[in-house]
Amino acid sequence: MISEKMYELGSQRSVIREIFEYGNQRKKEVGEENVYDFSLGNPSVPAPKAVNQAILDILNTEDEVAIHSYTSAQGSEECRSAMAKSLNQRFGTAFHANNFYMTVGAAASLSICLKAIASPEDEFITFAPFFPEYRCFVESAGGKLVVIPAKEDDFQIAFDLFEKAIHEKTKAIIINSPNNPAGTVYTEETLQKLVEILERKQKEYGHAIYLISDEPYREIVYDGYEVPFLTKYYANTFVCYSFSKALSLAGERIGYIIVPDEMEEAKKVYLAVCGAGRALGYVCAPSLFQKVVARCANEVSDLSIYKKNRDLLYEHLISLGFECVKPQGAFYLFPKALEENAEAFCERAKKYDLLLVPGTGFGCPSHVRISYCVTTKQIEKAMSAFEKLAEEYGHSRHM
Amino acid sequence: MISEKMYELGSQRSVIREIFEYGNQRKKEVGEENVYDFSLGNPSVPAPKAVNQAILDILNTEDEVAIHSYTSAQGSEECRSAMAKSLNQRFGTAFHANNFYMTVGAAASLSICLKAIASPEDEFITFAPFFPEYRCFVESAGGKLVVIPAKEDDFQIAFDLFEKAIHEKTKAIIINSPNNPAGTVYTEETLQKLVEILERKQKEYGHAIYLISDEPYREIVYDGYEVPFLTKYYANTFVCYSFSKALSLAGERIGYIIVPDEMEEAKKVYLAVCGAGRALGYVCAPSLFQKVVARCANEVSDLSIYKKNRDLLYEHLISLGFECVKPQGAFYLFPKALEENAEAFCERAKKYDLLLVPGTGFGCPSHVRISYCVTTKQIEKAMSAFEKLAEEYGHSRHM
Repeated sequence: MISEKMYELGSQRSVIREIFEYGNQRKKEVGEENVYDFSLGNPSVPAPKAVNQAILDILNTEDEVAIHSYTSAQGSEECRSAMAKSLNQRFGTAFHANNFYMTVGAAASLSICLKAIASPEDEFITFAPFFPEYRCFVESAGGKLVVIPAKEDDFQIAFDLFEKAIHEKTKAIIINSPNNPAGTVYTEETLQKLVEILERKQKEYGHAIYLISDEPYREIVYDGYEVPFLTKYYANTFVCYSFSKALSLAGERIGYIIVPDEMEEAKKVYLAVCGAGRALGYVCAPSLFQKVVARCANEVSDLSIYKKNRDLLYEHLISLGFECVKPQGAFYLFPKALEENAEAFCERAKKYDLLLVPGTGFGCPSHVRISYCVTTKQIEKAMSAFEKLAEEYGHSRHM
Repeated sequence: MISEKMYELGSQRSVIREIFEYGNQRKKEVGEENVYDFSLGNPSVPAPKAVNQAILDILNTEDEVAIHSYTSAQGSEECRSAMAKSLNQRFGTAFHANNFYMTVGAAASLSICLKAIASPEDEFITFAPFFPEYRCFVESAGGKLVVIPAKEDDFQIAFDLFEKAIHEKTKAIIINSPNNPAGTVYTEETLQKLVEILERKQKEYGHAIYLISDEPYREIVYDGYEVPFLTKYYANTFVCYSFSKALSLAGERIGYIIVPDEMEEAKKVYLAVCGAGRALGYVCAPSLFQKVVARCANEVSDLSIYKKNRDLLYEHLISLGFECVKPQGAFYLFPKALEENAEAFCERAKKYDLLLVPGTGFGCPSHVRISYCVTTKQIEKAMSAFEKLAEEYGHSRHM
């Protein structure tokens, strides 16, 4: 009597969640400090001090009823103006409040955009490695997800395969840079090539092809890398943002969608976004946290810990003979497993209480995801475990 | 290129929202204190002191990373246990944490339940007067909403009409008691009759017919009225709850779904709920507010103001010759307009800067909704405006 499809979605526990639960069990057996859990993308750095300070200030100074009251469905004017101002300052854009629709995080941002534009039989293209929930969101909106295999040497885009896959029913392209799970950032060259193809194909097919930019890791980049701001490159871009990672607010569910003025029929599209938010049961984004992010839009959590972790672990893996594209952002490493089948590799890693996620769900079955949003101490302690694991494959450390 | 249906949903501004915007405009013209806005259901009483105190305590004492981190999709164990404990104490139920799925408010609760159970061509029955967004949520899940006309003498259920409407394709019944817009509470007698019919029909059709109880106003009742707890009456009941009204947290988006153990295939249904939450892009309910409601589950905002408002306004309307079923709960009055067409009546009310909502969208086109979640001062000041409006229809005050 229930929806079998929803039952399936609910009962297929995600692989990541299963590893996490295994880890919790194992921690009870051998002690928390002896399990090296690299499975989850839950920020390990606290929110900037300004966040909790903002909460206190709001509780102390703002109208006690309004703090927790409904805002308009698209978010308060105050919050949306603050979003526009922050991006305009940082990226030289020219947004205004009405380009923004505040959401309950990135998953909501994506689900709402997809619902706003999807018609039956529409195809949505993404590039491996990709965040596995895309399939769920696209299918829930009635579309079909098409995955372009990874360009494994640098995790940029395999354009030859992309050009073969795009066709008249392609409604949108979903990109995620900095990328979960690979940590790579699309170069300006990659984006220009992508945009050139999309513009040519739009003309050829006579309709818009949207770019959906899922960018919760936008601020998490290292070594001076910059993430090009997509709306400056391509008019038909939806920006799907979340404060989950940059402000370490993953649980608070706050983010936004940008519909830029340059988009074809932008006002109509914005209204479709409003309609989709309504149809999915999103009434408004959480009111207190709308006020918080309005005050903290230019803040970022302390990234130095992530950078230190990345450097330590990347160098170590390379010294052990792993092949790994060096990530420029996010908080994941995505090396090739030391055997063809990453699932078997991850099973073997468990012997050393190393919890890694096989790349299968991300569209790269011979890679593994290592989330380094953990304590630096965990990384240091895990090094010998990685060493023992590598030894099983005849790899020894070369300095 | 976008979904026309979503565009329609987004561009049909809700009638309530339109009146609200008109009110804002009018306030600029004649001064805030001279516009009697009874259009919105936004709580006017602040959250109990315990809510902001809980926020401060959590920020001061709990782990700074965990406060804002992802919880499991169904909500933290701590929060769900607190929900079970509170209901068991207050209603004599025997819930446990695993009956609960925490949500982003009542609209999310409903949307998730509907998505979990709906198959194409399924019908969902509700009773006028009903909350207009039900249509949107049901259709978004792929179902069809069937509305049973109101029993206008007491706003209980027109069972003769209901029995004619229920049939093999009926998947669920949606009820809302205390009711928005009428404020009425279903009596135990009404519920017993409803359950008797549902049980008979389940047997006849050989499948479950779910009862979806939308109860954000459960705690807002007056004069010692009690809201019977539905799962005690009928096993196949989903409880959809929100803290929006009872804790004045409408903007914070926090609520839950209960799947009771007694429900047929309860574990499977619970997993379908998890799947639907995932498919709709709900990752978890806001983490800080999960902690807040866990600490404040037994708190309720100060209802004495609503009661005072109800009594003042109800007595006044009756003295002016309005016909009105006396509400036992929520914060709405739903009298009959003084002419057949409530929309024309509400237009005329604007002459006196009285902003009322016609009952058309609620399925009662000759009634008007008056939200009395306003200041008592506004009620007192509005009395002469109601008097002048009534005089236009030849009604004068009789004491």
